[in-house]
Amino acid sequence: VSFFSSRWVSEPRCTVQLDGGLPAGFRAAGVGCGIKPSGHRDLGLIVSDSPQTTSAARFGRSSGASAPVLLNRRSAELQGLRAVLVNSGNANAATGRRGLEDAAAMRSGAAFVCGVPESAVAVASTGVIGVPLPMDRVTDGTVAAGRELRRDGELDFAEAIRTTDRLPKHVSLQIELSQGAVRLSVQGKGAGMISPQFATLLVFVQTDAALSPAEADLLLSVCVKRSFNRVSVDGQLSTSDTVILQCSGASGVSVEPESDDERIFGEAMDAALRQIALLVARDGEGARRVGRVHVSGEDQASCERVARAVGDSPLVKTALYGADPNWGRIYQAATAALPGLAPLELEIAIEGITVCEAGSFVTHDEAALREAVKRPEVEYQIRLPGQGAEAERFFSDLGHEYVTLNAEYTT
Amino acid sequence: VSFFSSRWVSEPRCTVQLDGGLPAGFRAAGVGCGIKPSGHRDLGLIVSDSPQTTSAARFGRSSGASAPVLLNRRSAELQGLRAVLVNSGNANAATGRRGLEDAAAMRSGAAFVCGVPESAVAVASTGVIGVPLPMDRVTDGTVAAGRELRRDGELDFAEAIRTTDRLPKHVSLQIELSQGAVRLSVQGKGAGMISPQFATLLVFVQTDAALSPAEADLLLSVCVKRSFNRVSVDGQLSTSDTVILQCSGASGVSVEPESDDERIFGEAMDAALRQIALLVARDGEGARRVGRVHVSGEDQASCERVARAVGDSPLVKTALYGADPNWGRIYQAATAALPGLAPLELEIAIEGITVCEAGSFVTHDEAALREAVKRPEVEYQIRLPGQGAEAERFFSDLGHEYVTLNAEYTT
Repeated sequence: VSFFSSRWVSEPRCTVQLDGGLPAGFRAAGVGCGIKPSGHRDLGLIVSDSPQTTSAARFGRSSGASAPVLLNRRSAELQGLRAVLVNSGNANAATGRRGLEDAAAMRSGAAFVCGVPESAVAVASTGVIGVPLPMDRVTDGTVAAGRELRRDGELDFAEAIRTTDRLPKHVSLQIELSQGAVRLSVQGKGAGMISPQFATLLVFVQTDAALSPAEADLLLSVCVKRSFNRVSVDGQLSTSDTVILQCSGASGVSVEPESDDERIFGEAMDAALRQIALLVARDGEGARRVGRVHVSGEDQASCERVARAVGDSPLVKTALYGADPNWGRIYQAATAALPGLAPLELEIAIEGITVCEAGSFVTHDEAALREAVKRPEVEYQIRLPGQGAEAERFFSDLGHEYVTLNAEYTT
Repeated sequence: VSFFSSRWVSEPRCTVQLDGGLPAGFRAAGVGCGIKPSGHRDLGLIVSDSPQTTSAARFGRSSGASAPVLLNRRSAELQGLRAVLVNSGNANAATGRRGLEDAAAMRSGAAFVCGVPESAVAVASTGVIGVPLPMDRVTDGTVAAGRELRRDGELDFAEAIRTTDRLPKHVSLQIELSQGAVRLSVQGKGAGMISPQFATLLVFVQTDAALSPAEADLLLSVCVKRSFNRVSVDGQLSTSDTVILQCSGASGVSVEPESDDERIFGEAMDAALRQIALLVARDGEGARRVGRVHVSGEDQASCERVARAVGDSPLVKTALYGADPNWGRIYQAATAALPGLAPLELEIAIEGITVCEAGSFVTHDEAALREAVKRPEVEYQIRLPGQGAEAERFFSDLGHEYVTLNAEYTT
């Protein structure tokens, strides 16, 4: 089965999916160092051996940013990151000065075992909030991870960064550009609506194409906007969200701004990150369905507000879970998002079946609608008056497993 | 048991709870006219027989306002409402021009059977969205309700406006003022987080005290802000939210602005509406607990944003349901609500136990915290830096019954 399994992701041109392996110049490892009581892998390390590596990074905007996020922002060279050290099982958030010291110690350890400058190392942590890291274990684990770095270590790395994710979220691609082939690999973690106490989104992208720092930053920015910024992870922003792109240049093929190659490479990266974002929304054995809401209208802010309101509504999410065709919940969420005395003349279509026009119900094929909302992906189209702006949001359903994992599983 | 059952509502001075009955000058009725397939009461009528009746009204701000809300706003004399006709089982929302005609027909019918001008009638509807009202039944029902109007008809009325509410939400109070006793009665409906496809909040308040329209409006405004505007009904605004206060003046006792009597009367009304709001949050056999978040800080908007984010967070709500002491969810919701690069130095206390100071964990009595979060009401105090502003929000938990009612019960 192709990695690109959603109809909402266009299969990229000139791209083939590989069985695995990292792009040229990268090595990775994942070890268990004892942060997780289960003994599972909980410390991942990834390094580019090329000194001319470029990079770009994005972090969540929470004012409760975790210590690693604060450290990266304050003192990492985000355009030249060579190595990334990530632990799961503990978020190192709400840990004060001690947390910052621990994050700095993680960074020193990774720099030492990888033989790169400290400023070329990013760190990330995901897991429980408000508990100090067991640094002796992390230090030993860092040494062990350094010894295990391998060209095909990305699966161990991907496993080490997972917390309660049920679905693996990684892919290796090869993209044919005009000057030769380049590779792109992605490892992610994040389980939308399923275990959001651990719902941090961590995504690491590597390529052996050569990109200037500005180019890398621009591409990452566009792709994050079209993927992770469009997922409703129960409307919550984590303390630790981190996305890092590293470009080793080791393929010898460079991607020039505004070239055909850039479009092809950008399409592949866009598709990969959108598909990872959809896997985040779909994660968990309980999630039955993924929804996509698409809103068009005159004003960008209004479209965004409606898309977010629909995607975050627990009424819409439970209806998605229960395959309930009750479109009144979409109407309610959309109109509540745009308060005002003038009635909103919106149009709503579910899976192409128009149920509301000019703000009022229209007769429709109810049996067809009932069938349509049972599919694994359900699409909601909302048209506000006017045109020129649009917004999109992916969201997971809300079911019993969410409640069980978040309520009954005392953390 | 006193109606004032929450520790978050101060028992009002000079006030006794009555077994029932409407204030002088009012009559009410509730009948079953066949809108609900169950045959239960679904049409309620309340009327003040006093021509000098004053009133005040508040409606939800959704741009998908129901036809009755639109009609009331456009052409009712909201300062002199004599009668209110309310149906349950159908919201008359997203029903276009026909919906407006139906709402106007409801108003005409109520005016006719009560013998009052059309402009002195408000209408309200709650139930399914996007389906036209069965007007023949509503018309017959209005005639039947008019025949059954009684001084003690408020319980039938309260039953007729309920949809899936499990708890009754009504009270009759007598308040001793300096010039004599007045009565205050309230009937409400709304089930937070339980069946929010029908989660419309409808609240009707009657008193036989004499209040000027301006006075009635001011009191209602303050009380609504301190009650219904502080409940998280899963963050959703309904198409039909309506609160109406009617003052018949039939007691012969008037409440003058800025008098001691006004303070006493205002306290009683405030307490009654806050308690009704808490009943809304607590409604449903599945809701185990009600939470209150109180936020203090320098800036009103920030306090409001944090209070709303915590009260609306599905992570906080599931933790409340599961009696999970994980305060990281509070930290996450609060800090995500105030994005920014500077770390937020907040303090968090749960039931008086401080768990976080200056944005960082503090050692606390974990066993005491685990016990504290098992109580039926759980209080979260958040202190942002600075002082002078505060916000409060009540919220229900999120449990299996919410999912079952909203997902498995196809509407």
